[in-house]
Amino acid sequence: MSNEKNSQSQKPSAAPQTAITPTRAENYPEWYQQVVRAADLAENSDVRGCMVIKPWGYALWENIQRSLDKMFKDTGHKNAYFPLFIPLSYFEKEAEHVEGFAKECAVVTHHRLKPGVKADGKEGLIPDGELQEPLVVRPTSETIIGASFAKWVQSYRDLPLLINQWANVVRWEMRTRLFLRTAEFLWQEGHTAHATEKEAMEETLKMLEVYADFAENWMAMPVIKGEKTEGERFPGAVNTYCIEAMMQDRKALQAGTSHFLGQNFAHASDIRFSDAEGKISFAWTTSWGVSTRLIGGMIMTHADDDGMVLPPRLAPSHVVIIPVTHKPETAQAVLDFCNKLAADLRKIPYAGRTVDVEVDARDIRGGDKAWQWIKKGIPLRVEVGPRDMEQDSVFMARRDRAHKDKQSLKRDEFVATITTILEDMQSGLFARAKAHRDANMKRFDSRAEFEAFFGAKNEAEGDEGSGGAVKGGFALVHYSPDPKLEDELKAKFAVTCRCIPVEGDAEPGACIFSGKPSARRAVFAKSY
Amino acid sequence: MSNEKNSQSQKPSAAPQTAITPTRAENYPEWYQQVVRAADLAENSDVRGCMVIKPWGYALWENIQRSLDKMFKDTGHKNAYFPLFIPLSYFEKEAEHVEGFAKECAVVTHHRLKPGVKADGKEGLIPDGELQEPLVVRPTSETIIGASFAKWVQSYRDLPLLINQWANVVRWEMRTRLFLRTAEFLWQEGHTAHATEKEAMEETLKMLEVYADFAENWMAMPVIKGEKTEGERFPGAVNTYCIEAMMQDRKALQAGTSHFLGQNFAHASDIRFSDAEGKISFAWTTSWGVSTRLIGGMIMTHADDDGMVLPPRLAPSHVVIIPVTHKPETAQAVLDFCNKLAADLRKIPYAGRTVDVEVDARDIRGGDKAWQWIKKGIPLRVEVGPRDMEQDSVFMARRDRAHKDKQSLKRDEFVATITTILEDMQSGLFARAKAHRDANMKRFDSRAEFEAFFGAKNEAEGDEGSGGAVKGGFALVHYSPDPKLEDELKAKFAVTCRCIPVEGDAEPGACIFSGKPSARRAVFAKSY
Repeated sequence: MSNEKNSQSQKPSAAPQTAITPTRAENYPEWYQQVVRAADLAENSDVRGCMVIKPWGYALWENIQRSLDKMFKDTGHKNAYFPLFIPLSYFEKEAEHVEGFAKECAVVTHHRLKPGVKADGKEGLIPDGELQEPLVVRPTSETIIGASFAKWVQSYRDLPLLINQWANVVRWEMRTRLFLRTAEFLWQEGHTAHATEKEAMEETLKMLEVYADFAENWMAMPVIKGEKTEGERFPGAVNTYCIEAMMQDRKALQAGTSHFLGQNFAHASDIRFSDAEGKISFAWTTSWGVSTRLIGGMIMTHADDDGMVLPPRLAPSHVVIIPVTHKPETAQAVLDFCNKLAADLRKIPYAGRTVDVEVDARDIRGGDKAWQWIKKGIPLRVEVGPRDMEQDSVFMARRDRAHKDKQSLKRDEFVATITTILEDMQSGLFARAKAHRDANMKRFDSRAEFEAFFGAKNEAEGDEGSGGAVKGGFALVHYSPDPKLEDELKAKFAVTCRCIPVEGDAEPGACIFSGKPSARRAVFAKSY
Repeated sequence: MSNEKNSQSQKPSAAPQTAITPTRAENYPEWYQQVVRAADLAENSDVRGCMVIKPWGYALWENIQRSLDKMFKDTGHKNAYFPLFIPLSYFEKEAEHVEGFAKECAVVTHHRLKPGVKADGKEGLIPDGELQEPLVVRPTSETIIGASFAKWVQSYRDLPLLINQWANVVRWEMRTRLFLRTAEFLWQEGHTAHATEKEAMEETLKMLEVYADFAENWMAMPVIKGEKTEGERFPGAVNTYCIEAMMQDRKALQAGTSHFLGQNFAHASDIRFSDAEGKISFAWTTSWGVSTRLIGGMIMTHADDDGMVLPPRLAPSHVVIIPVTHKPETAQAVLDFCNKLAADLRKIPYAGRTVDVEVDARDIRGGDKAWQWIKKGIPLRVEVGPRDMEQDSVFMARRDRAHKDKQSLKRDEFVATITTILEDMQSGLFARAKAHRDANMKRFDSRAEFEAFFGAKNEAEGDEGSGGAVKGGFALVHYSPDPKLEDELKAKFAVTCRCIPVEGDAEPGACIFSGKPSARRAVFAKSY
């Protein structure tokens, strides 16, 4: 392995190659949008708040789906599919639930169009065929799935019922941002019913564990597992658990939730069963979900000022091979060498599939080509020119290192070690993200320290458009839950209680706000 | 291999085991509904026309997806995702298109709910926050995807653009039937853009070929590839191609369509590109789709009076192993034997995955258990009792044979031959369906023969609810397309021109209705 300059490097480009503009330090929110655009992951559509997920972004989602789906099936869940539309009467059955979702839902009121005069006075099509009962486009499916569960569950023998759905959902959010918060998004929602409270709680925590495992071992994104306080609970849930990650701007991202619903939805949907003695009881239910928001989390955890950085286990492609074919007399031989290399790599098992390879033989300037792949975040770039071919070697660049830091490797050595290199990158990304998180997670034992850490909201450098870094990070403080105080902290500091961790430090103390006893420290942060 | 009676057969059941009621001969449409119910594939929801796809049905859909998705990717297509909602103004851009879909679409007019007095005079939630422009829930995505294509395509270098989307769509059908015609259904829709007419037409026909390949080699359902006449074209298409299959009641099912859209949608969405000389042209586009309707086709092609019959390559599970554990002293050993057998089978590659095995150790009567699996259509049922175990053998029943026709096989022989058995079943199902189709496809050279074949509509035994068989089948006749005549045939005989085949017999003749010249015979049939 040598670290020399590649003598067959691409044509020098006339214009300087560009990284992402602005940088993270200059304007983090704008940097995020530009990374999404430059990596060709997604774009806004003309439909308010709805995004188009482009092929590179969708392939990433497919890999997320494949890995999670296997974890769900390995824990005994089966997939099914339920209606997109929820009758308003279903929705109204659970009071807190409807309260939580009524303000941001898409309502279908008509079932055809007819010619007529539109609101703007022009001739065109207008809604016709008014529905007797409006239908809500699902923002989540507890009530519509509950109606099926009520039919499917009769006896304790029908329990547990362990169902998952991959679907699109709609929440009419006022402020949207690609992947992080969109009106329509893709997600999975698990819904389960159990005979006992204990079993339902075990399921809730098991799926929280599955999410944490996925986030850390596939997304390379460290998370804190915890429980939400009352004000942050899912509408209708008894307990909401979550995984919280720290982004590079030190704000928190809720990356997945798992809800213990008690018997609330079983009462609302009439999910009852007879036990072995014939006694009728209401079931205990759970629900849990993660969404395309995870892609936003991945970007804000790993991407840098050059663009996207993909964790290898989820990358749509692991390596791009770029044939350097300036000399016509060797061009075909170089291309053949590259295609043979690709074919050999594609046989290698990695992360539940095989190594995925692109051969990019497009006739565009080499520097532009390399930059496109850098911005897309592909883990490895390999260049092969005539001299590399002669020496049976390749020139390799890793996305987690400076992009001029290239290595020459014997071709067979590269094939033999590619999965080791990818796993090294995977664990390196996790370690880097964890070091950042841990360095910005502080313990405070007084309200004054807490306030100084975050700063007042009107000096919050992290507000959108203002650029620069957010003040603060994760504050670990003793806390006795108080919804009014949480409202005040949100208003004054834009800070919320992210969760009370379920693991780690369990030393009791006194709430820094009220002095009341606290069993363990909670995590406070600004958040997405 | 011996064909003896199983001495360790399940307890005899008190009540006679039931097949599907009614039989196909008694009432075909009702038989269909009962097969779907008994096989636990899907059920109606309370939302008009929307079905719930149950785990066994959804697993079948997942296998369809996996196989088709690979075929799409192998032919160069990439998946992406576009918004569920289509602004009315997009929809209006293509005149024929909006005409075709305006009468059956779900219209979103509001984006929140508020307390108020409902249509029935009761207090509750009512729509609030009226949208400036109503949104249509996509019935198909040509116009919304076209808007993205217009942005993505600038130069000939951006072409061809080969995109596929897996999604839910909604068409407000008045008469619905599980899988065959539902208001919401799941499908894939391919959308491509090309620089030339020739290339777009090649794509259209290539995807038709992919669908035919999938139908015949995965679903074991023989199909005729053909072109639709004008009246049956997709709204906005220049040419619509289809695959048509014959169901057991001899009616046709359109199982997939591939549309050559010419430049119609490129004009509507402004998809233009500059060629190598810098000249600006409109792109040529195609679209093609198959849906959960395929599951309906599979049922009506293969299921019998005992319930579902699954083609092995798509079956959610290939084999159920039923331990016969009446004697407590051998129960655990039998169960261990079964689990070891399952583990060995699960290592065997088959149809792009590995053999999928259920071990059904539930404590229910053996006869009931066997019947549940017969109705679900699992290809192989294997029983293992203490004596089988002693002899290191299993008792196997194939779903494509009489269900009392069981064979004793040495365990290792079963493991060694299972994929051969499954492939034998797969080809047997195809051969049986093809023989049925071919026996009921007739050539006629006069209108009188044609009319006698189908019978008048009011004596149409196949009408829903009347039971019995449909008169007719596939009529191959020379035909010179005439939309008025097609309306007449539809009104009088409930018969439509299914397609003009693109392959096979190309002997010219004279239209049996008009005497005009005809290049080749068309297929007429009653249809779903």
